[in-house]
Amino acid sequence: MGVEVICTTDDPADSLEYHRAYAASRAEGEPRMWPTWRPDRVMAVEDPEGWNTYINRLSEVAGRSIGNFAELLEALRERQRVFAAAGCRLSDHGLDTFYGEEFTDGGLESLFAVLRRGRGLTETERAVFRSGMLYHLAVMNAERGWAQQFHVGPLRNNRTRLMRGYGADAGADSLDDQPVARAMGRFLDRLEREGRLARTVVYNLNPKDGEAMAAMAGNFQDGTVAGKMQYGAAWWFSDHLNGMERQLNILSDYGLLSRFVGMLTDSRSFLSFPRHEYFRRLLCDILGRDVERGRIPYTEMEAVGRMVENICYGNAKSYFGF
Amino acid sequence: MGVEVICTTDDPADSLEYHRAYAASRAEGEPRMWPTWRPDRVMAVEDPEGWNTYINRLSEVAGRSIGNFAELLEALRERQRVFAAAGCRLSDHGLDTFYGEEFTDGGLESLFAVLRRGRGLTETERAVFRSGMLYHLAVMNAERGWAQQFHVGPLRNNRTRLMRGYGADAGADSLDDQPVARAMGRFLDRLEREGRLARTVVYNLNPKDGEAMAAMAGNFQDGTVAGKMQYGAAWWFSDHLNGMERQLNILSDYGLLSRFVGMLTDSRSFLSFPRHEYFRRLLCDILGRDVERGRIPYTEMEAVGRMVENICYGNAKSYFGF
Amino acid sequence: MGVEVICTTDDPADSLEYHRAYAASRAEGEPRMWPTWRPDRVMAVEDPEGWNTYINRLSEVAGRSIGNFAELLEALRERQRVFAAAGCRLSDHGLDTFYGEEFTDGGLESLFAVLRRGRGLTETERAVFRSGMLYHLAVMNAERGWAQQFHVGPLRNNRTRLMRGYGADAGADSLDDQPVARAMGRFLDRLEREGRLARTVVYNLNPKDGEAMAAMAGNFQDGTVAGKMQYGAAWWFSDHLNGMERQLNILSDYGLLSRFVGMLTDSRSFLSFPRHEYFRRLLCDILGRDVERGRIPYTEMEAVGRMVENICYGNAKSYFGF
Repeated sequence: MGVEVICTTDDPADSLEYHRAYAASRAEGEPRMWPTWRPDRVMAVEDPEGWNTYINRLSEVAGRSIGNFAELLEALRERQRVFAAAGCRLSDHGLDTFYGEEFTDGGLESLFAVLRRGRGLTETERAVFRSGMLYHLAVMNAERGWAQQFHVGPLRNNRTRLMRGYGADAGADSLDDQPVARAMGRFLDRLEREGRLARTVVYNLNPKDGEAMAAMAGNFQDGTVAGKMQYGAAWWFSDHLNGMERQLNILSDYGLLSRFVGMLTDSRSFLSFPRHEYFRRLLCDILGRDVERGRIPYTEMEAVGRMVENICYGNAKSYFGF
Repeated sequence: MGVEVICTTDDPADSLEYHRAYAASRAEGEPRMWPTWRPDRVMAVEDPEGWNTYINRLSEVAGRSIGNFAELLEALRERQRVFAAAGCRLSDHGLDTFYGEEFTDGGLESLFAVLRRGRGLTETERAVFRSGMLYHLAVMNAERGWAQQFHVGPLRNNRTRLMRGYGADAGADSLDDQPVARAMGRFLDRLEREGRLARTVVYNLNPKDGEAMAAMAGNFQDGTVAGKMQYGAAWWFSDHLNGMERQLNILSDYGLLSRFVGMLTDSRSFLSFPRHEYFRRLLCDILGRDVERGRIPYTEMEAVGRMVENICYGNAKSYFGF
Repeated sequence: MGVEVICTTDDPADSLEYHRAYAASRAEGEPRMWPTWRPDRVMAVEDPEGWNTYINRLSEVAGRSIGNFAELLEALRERQRVFAAAGCRLSDHGLDTFYGEEFTDGGLESLFAVLRRGRGLTETERAVFRSGMLYHLAVMNAERGWAQQFHVGPLRNNRTRLMRGYGADAGADSLDDQPVARAMGRFLDRLEREGRLARTVVYNLNPKDGEAMAAMAGNFQDGTVAGKMQYGAAWWFSDHLNGMERQLNILSDYGLLSRFVGMLTDSRSFLSFPRHEYFRRLLCDILGRDVERGRIPYTEMEAVGRMVENICYGNAKSYFGF
C-alpha cells in the first residue's frame, strides 16, 4: 500500500512502549508509526469512580501528583512532551457535542475537588467542567503546534444490558441529534479570540449536522495555513458509499475540495488500509463523473490529477507535517 | 394484485363487526382481513373532554368499568383479546415523538384521576402520562406477541381555522423537527432491560431523523428474530420517489436491506394497492442500477431476485406471522 | 438578459433618491427598478445603541416623532407609502428564526420604552419584542397587498475578532441548527386566523429545515392566490448546484413545482444576473433528465416547456404583480 506514516490513537496514560520498540527496530523503508493524543478519558466525568481511577493512573504514568485542576493540566503537558518525543503531531477528541459553556479557573478547581472526593456532578456542572477541560486541551494543542480533530455526535450506551455486560463503547452506540452549531461556534471563537486556535478538523456523526459544521468551520479560516479549518472525512455510521459522497459534496459546496487532507480512519485496525483505497477510488469516481458531465473540462485533466494526488497524499503531508 | 392478507387500522373501541362479517362470508381464495391495534386515542390527553368521552366508550365496548389507570389497562387487554381473536397480530402507534420520561404507577393513577375529573394536565404531566401509557401499551404488545409500529414526527393542527372548521387531523398537519434520538433510546431501553421489547418497526416523518432512528433501532437487535428491529418504509410526506429511495438507502447504509419487511401503507384505502406495486418497481430499479454500475455482480442476479421476493413477500409473511 | 424589472433590497430609512432619479431618467425599454422593503434593522434590538440610532434616523426620514411603539408602526407605515409610490410590491425579512411568542400591545410599549432609554432586553424580552414586531410588519405587508419573504436560519457574528474589526455581517456568518417548525407554525397561524396572511415565500438556510418548512408553508395555502405560500429558491450557503437541485426536489415532493415563482437573488449585485440563467439551465436539466428517464412522457414536452416559462417568467409576473 505504500504506507509512509501511521498515526495510532493513544490514551495520554499509555506508556507508548510499543511505539518506542517499533521505532527502535524499524528498518529503513518501513512505515513510521507515531502516536495520536486522544485524551477523552479526562472528560469522562459522568463516572466519577472510573474517572478517579484514570486520574490516578495518569498521575502514576506522568510521575506527578494530581491534587488539583492545575496539576492535572501539568500532568497532561508532561505526557504531551512524551508523545511529542515519540513523533505525535495531532490530537483526536471524541465528543458527544461541543462544549461552549462559561467557566472560571476557580470553578474548575472546585469541580475537580468534588470529583476527586468521588462525588458526581450535576448535568450543568459536567457541562461546565467539560467546557473548561476541552478548552485547556485545545490550548495545549495550539501550544504544541499539533493539529486537533473533533469527532462529534455519538449517543452512547443506549442499551443498558449490553453496557452492563460488556462495558462502555461495547455496542449500542448510535447517533445523537441535538443542535450543535452554537456550542461549536462559542468553543472555536473563544480560542480564536485568544490566538490559540490550532489547525482543526471537525467530523460529524449525524448527517443532518454536515452543512452547519462545515460552514461553521469555515468561519475560522485565517490564511495562516492552507485549509486550516477542515471538514473531515465521513466517519463511523457514515463510512460507506453514500456517506462518503455526501461528505465530499458538502466539502465542495461549503469549502475548497482541493485543500482537503483526505481520508482518515480511526478504526484502530490494520485492515483499515483498504478503506483509504476505497476513498481514493470514490474520489476519482466523483471527479470522473463531473468530467463526463462536462462540469469539469477535459482540458483540465492534469489539474484534476494533481488535486487528487494532493487530497490523497500531499495535503495531509504538509498539513500534519509528516 | 394477488393480495393474501389485509391488515386494517382500528381503534381499540371499534366493535370489529365488519371484520367478523367479512370473515364469516369470505370465500376460499379471497384475502384474509385482520384488524391492527391502533390505540392512539388513549394517549390524546391534550383534550380531556374528548379523552373522557373516548374512555367511556372504551369502557362500554369492553364491558368493564374504568375507574382507575389499572382498570384502563385491563379494558385494553380485554379489547386485545377480541382483536387477537379477529386475527390481529400487530399494533400501530402514531406519535409526535417518543416518550421516555420517568413515571411511577402511583403517578399514573394520580394523573388518570385528574383527567377523569375532566381537568387538563400540564405539559410535563402530559409527557409523563404518555410515557407511562406508551410503555404499558408496548408491554401489552410484547405479552401478546404482536409486532409494534411507531409512526413518529407529525406536528398537527397547525392551522387553527381549519381545525375548528373540520376537526383534528383534517388538514394542516405537517412535520415537526425536534430531536428524537434520546427519548427513543430511553423508551426502547426500558423495554429491552425488562425483556419486554416486541418486534418493532419505526417510521420517521421528518427526513432529518432517518439516520438517527435507523441507527437507534439497530442498537436493539438481539438475534431472537431476524430483523427484529426494522427501519420502516417511507411514509406520508416522504411517500414519493425521492423519499422512498432515501428510506431504502438509509436502511442499506445502517442496517440490512435483505431483512426488510417492505412497504406498508396506512392510508386506509383500497386504492393503496398500487403503492405496493410502485414500491416493488422502485426497489427493483435501485437494485438494477446497482447491478448496471457493477456494485452488485451480474452473477448474483438470482440472489438479488430472491432478496426482492423476500422484501416484497417472504419477510413480512414470516416477521408478522401471516 | 432581457430584464424587465429589478427589485432592489432597501432599508425603510433609505431615501430612495436613486430610485427616483433612475425612474425619472429611464428610457423606454430599459428595466424598471423598484425598491423592496427590508425592515430588518427595527428587529435588531440586541444592540440597543445601534437600534436607537437607527430609530432616530427613521424618525427623521419619516418626518415623525417616534416616542412609542405605536408611533414606530406609524413611521413604518409612512415609509411604506413612500416605498409603494416608488413601485415596491414585496418585502424581505432576514430572520435567525421565526418568532411565535405571545405578546400584548402594552408589553410591546414597555419593551419599546426600555429600549429607548438605551437599556438592553433579556433574551426572553428580545424574543417577545421581535415576535410582536414581526407580527406587525407582516400585518402591514398584508394591508399593503405586498408579498412577503422570510429568509430564515443564519447564525451571525460567530467570530468576534472579525465582527469587531469589520462590523456586523462582515463575515463569520453561518448556519444555525435549532428547530424551526413550531415557531413558524405559530407565527403563520396567528396571521391566518386574523385573515392577515400575505402571499408568503419562505427560504431555509440550513438544508435540514427544507422539508419541514416546505410542508409547514403548505398548511396555509388557501386558494385565494395560486401558489400563495411558496417554498423559495436555494439561498446563500445553498446557492450551488446541489443546493438548488435539492430545493427543486423538495418543492416537487412537498408542493407544486408548476406554481413556483422561481429564482431570486438577494446578493445586491448586478453580477447576479447570470445566476438566474444558471437556475434556468438547471431547471431544464432536471426536467430533461426526468423526460429521458421516462418519468415525464415525451408527448408532454410542450406542457413542460410552458411550465418552464411560467417558473422563469410568468409565475413571478403574476404573483408579484410585475
